[in-house]
Amino acid sequence: MDSRIDHLQRRACARPGVLGLGGGLPAPELFPRAQLSRAFLRAIERADGLQYGWPEGNRGLRAWVAERLRDRGAFVAEDEVIVTSGAQQGIAIATAVLRARTIEVDPECYPAALDLFRARGLRMVPAKGPLGDAVTAAYVMPGVSNPRGQGLPEERRRALIARGGALIVDEAYAELRFDGKLERPLLADARDRTFHVGTVSKSLCPGLRVGWLVPPRRDLDAAIAAKRELDLQAPSLGQAILEEYLAGDDFDARLARARRFYRRRAERFVRALRRAFPSFRMEDPEGGFCVWVETDVAGDDATLLSIATDCGVSFDPGRMFRHDERSSPIAMRLCYSATAIPELELAVQRLERAFRALARRGRAAR
Amino acid sequence: MDSRIDHLQRRACARPGVLGLGGGLPAPELFPRAQLSRAFLRAIERADGLQYGWPEGNRGLRAWVAERLRDRGAFVAEDEVIVTSGAQQGIAIATAVLRARTIEVDPECYPAALDLFRARGLRMVPAKGPLGDAVTAAYVMPGVSNPRGQGLPEERRRALIARGGALIVDEAYAELRFDGKLERPLLADARDRTFHVGTVSKSLCPGLRVGWLVPPRRDLDAAIAAKRELDLQAPSLGQAILEEYLAGDDFDARLARARRFYRRRAERFVRALRRAFPSFRMEDPEGGFCVWVETDVAGDDATLLSIATDCGVSFDPGRMFRHDERSSPIAMRLCYSATAIPELELAVQRLERAFRALARRGRAAR
Repeated sequence: MDSRIDHLQRRACARPGVLGLGGGLPAPELFPRAQLSRAFLRAIERADGLQYGWPEGNRGLRAWVAERLRDRGAFVAEDEVIVTSGAQQGIAIATAVLRARTIEVDPECYPAALDLFRARGLRMVPAKGPLGDAVTAAYVMPGVSNPRGQGLPEERRRALIARGGALIVDEAYAELRFDGKLERPLLADARDRTFHVGTVSKSLCPGLRVGWLVPPRRDLDAAIAAKRELDLQAPSLGQAILEEYLAGDDFDARLARARRFYRRRAERFVRALRRAFPSFRMEDPEGGFCVWVETDVAGDDATLLSIATDCGVSFDPGRMFRHDERSSPIAMRLCYSATAIPELELAVQRLERAFRALARRGRAAR
Repeated sequence: MDSRIDHLQRRACARPGVLGLGGGLPAPELFPRAQLSRAFLRAIERADGLQYGWPEGNRGLRAWVAERLRDRGAFVAEDEVIVTSGAQQGIAIATAVLRARTIEVDPECYPAALDLFRARGLRMVPAKGPLGDAVTAAYVMPGVSNPRGQGLPEERRRALIARGGALIVDEAYAELRFDGKLERPLLADARDRTFHVGTVSKSLCPGLRVGWLVPPRRDLDAAIAAKRELDLQAPSLGQAILEEYLAGDDFDARLARARRFYRRRAERFVRALRRAFPSFRMEDPEGGFCVWVETDVAGDDATLLSIATDCGVSFDPGRMFRHDERSSPIAMRLCYSATAIPELELAVQRLERAFRALARRGRAAR
């Protein structure tokens, strides 16, 4: 990540009173603390809760992931699931195992995946139109993309299946589509070349650090070996808590409540944004935590972030989501997920002030 | 790891009644379940216990690591510590950042480090004598080596400091020296080229999945970036529990009890081994969880493991600890850490039976 942006974001987080619209954090009100506490008290009495485990993870969790994928039409056996230290590690292992030189990404894409691809020396090609280029590998977020919050168009889905090539399919937000639709996973139609990635970080809480990876079958052993080399295994305690939690709670009912919760925030936030910034372009998020806002303002999004922080609001600058780290024209990812509605409306007012200050500065410079 | 060994070890673990002397597991009796439960109940009420955190980890934990290193003579600021997903990830990040082509390892060395170096294409050179070769980088375990359980000879320590080159210094077991001595860390004398790695997995419990890395200062930003690319951050919950635990317990008193506990097991186990196998070579462990046993028996350690499992005992075959994966002459890492003394003595009897069966099989084949 750009060190200037990193510095500005840390500065914004450290400043009291700044409303943070960055980071993609889930709402802490939704963390099921009581249920997780009960799950913990069962987990810590288990023989495996505090001890080492196998690199591929706990059997119960792998079975749960496999069953949910089978319910959606993908044939996945529990032995084919690797529990990872979050979705990011699933992407990292997939990247290591598939050994691509080029990867297709969305024109706006999840920053930590872009940083990973960049660090591994992959050439990143933004998908052009629904069909994309004939590149070897692609990284996609079906269901709910990040930062756009949009589903995968059917045409693009068909093209990804038809054209061949490895797919890293990141479903981090897929269970948080506001319409509750969970599509047939790409895994079901491209089993032999899909690295399917999921997590409970968005749907339950990030603190357990539990995600998963279902690699193509021929890459399973290599992926487990890579997992072991990277950090031996996902946290035993997080896995045991999650298993106990899932045994004692209705996870799908919780997902349904979370969808309603985030949808309400999304609607109110986007309405306030459109009222304040009629010329900015944004789509209604179909799910997830954020809205992607594009402007015609030429300029430096880091400067805007710095000004905005002084105005009491922060956000994720557009450059983080662009494979070429272009900062102009200014775009922003604005997360509504972890901020209550009154503060979201206040944050929009502060953003207005920040854009006015940026414009004044631009005029003064001319 | 050798897939045949992996298969045999899983088979041994799955077989009821087999006494497992493999794996390097801490004794579950030492896990402070009550203290960890109290720590959990405080951690889950914190704003950061279930939420995302920064890639470098929690401030309190970083400060604790830095302070303990300063007490031992190394100048380390809390900002220079990265909390990792266990010690293994510290080694993995160090390996990625230092970009060596060749690495010096002990003639017998921690298997997951060897597997990592192998997977990254590093040429491994076993240290010859105390001075070692003039290679660019070295991986060492001062205090308590794995699998030998020996301290770093003073002559070798001086040579490592004098000769230059990057050092990956893995202190996973260093706090578990039976004499309680914690040497001046190599970091104190080679701050600009030492990647210092530590963990609570051996001293407290592995389930939290919390370790740390102190890289050379010039590599700090690259190491934090690598951490973020690999899995965003170490588990927030594990970190918060550990912070709360450390605030409420006397960790050094716990270490002292653990040393006495493991020393007792080590003494009884090695005595029984020497009585049963007078011709085998082994050193008294100076700390840690295991003893390294060398034999003059030519043969295949995987075959021995298979026979031993049928006799009701399993172990880590010597090839896992050799950079060239040589299986003969047969050697074994035998862990006494997670097995009670009567079972350790029973395990030795079963090992005797296994060696007799191996010898019979050898004679039959001739």
